[in-house]
Amino acid sequence: MKAAVLYSGGKDSSLMAVILQRLGYHVELLTANFDVFPSWKPAKEAADNLGFKHQILKANPEILEEAVEKILKDGFPNQGIKHLHNKVLYLAAQNYNLLADGTRRDDRVPKIRLNEIQSLEDTKSVQYLNLAGWGHRTINQLSEKLFKIKKEPTSMKNNSDYEIEIRYLMGQKEGENMASKLFPPHTQSRVIGWREDE
Amino acid sequence: MKAAVLYSGGKDSSLMAVILQRLGYHVELLTANFDVFPSWKPAKEAADNLGFKHQILKANPEILEEAVEKILKDGFPNQGIKHLHNKVLYLAAQNYNLLADGTRRDDRVPKIRLNEIQSLEDTKSVQYLNLAGWGHRTINQLSEKLFKIKKEPTSMKNNSDYEIEIRYLMGQKEGENMASKLFPPHTQSRVIGWREDE
Repeated sequence: MKAAVLYSGGKDSSLMAVILQRLGYHVELLTANFDVFPSWKPAKEAADNLGFKHQILKANPEILEEAVEKILKDGFPNQGIKHLHNKVLYLAAQNYNLLADGTRRDDRVPKIRLNEIQSLEDTKSVQYLNLAGWGHRTINQLSEKLFKIKKEPTSMKNNSDYEIEIRYLMGQKEGENMASKLFPPHTQSRVIGWREDE
Repeated sequence: MKAAVLYSGGKDSSLMAVILQRLGYHVELLTANFDVFPSWKPAKEAADNLGFKHQILKANPEILEEAVEKILKDGFPNQGIKHLHNKVLYLAAQNYNLLADGTRRDDRVPKIRLNEIQSLEDTKSVQYLNLAGWGHRTINQLSEKLFKIKKEPTSMKNNSDYEIEIRYLMGQKEGENMASKLFPPHTQSRVIGWREDE
């Protein structure tokens, strides 16, 4: 049984991948890229270090344009990121019977709703799953047990979230100030490999 | 790290237990019982066959009384079962730092809501998790891979769901007809052990 996990190199999607692998799935990690900035690199590095197969999911730059326009119009990133993620789910679903991501219970970005999940599953004949039943405390506890983790300020070079290409395109279109205002600097936890006792 | 899973012997709670075990938790399975009917027996049998530690979580019969009254008043079982489950969660949370159940994305009984989860976690200093991000198709697929499963009509002797003690008490109070009307006969899938290749 093959399963794909949309992968950022962060704790949530890494844990989702480990769960499916330990249940017996052949897991492939996918990192979406819109051909604007090679933000997939840190995710690939994490996947390699964990020993997972990794692929770049090449997506149409127009989807990124749409997301950036939405975010500029809204004045905050949540709906734009959700739009991007939904498009990426449909794209990834073309090639897999089971598709997962690391969405957790207390994610700030709006979660895909039940009716949206049903549409995705019915339209694409796919099973979709995530960590919507798991909170950040459990995910942090498990991640510290399983993974070597590096905490550091997010930069363009150490993060594979959608945010990076959005920022890059927004910086080109509207200047760095706008990008920094909508995506203020923050600290991130990044998976860099297995803990030695795992 | 110890984790408790509220356990019925069904596919959902069995899968939750396996996930936590394979992530490294020492899993203990708990089956609530209200001292009205020994409905915990099939769950204990499943737990034994899978090699998990199993305990009966003795709960106050008054909680069962409240649930039965609610169900008779409502004319359908969902809210009464939810009431029972919430009380059982608070009871189980007293003794564990991590508490899980097999609630899945498409469960018919109303799921514990985000604000209710936050109250439970804050009041009892517990982490709660479930399979709310997983649909029945994925759970069925995995269960067939992992477990020996027996499909059969639900009876008082082969099921450890809350339904059994509710039915029993309702039968005593209102007669068998009322109990059968509110809980019509159905087929169930019950975990009876590991598949040999697992």
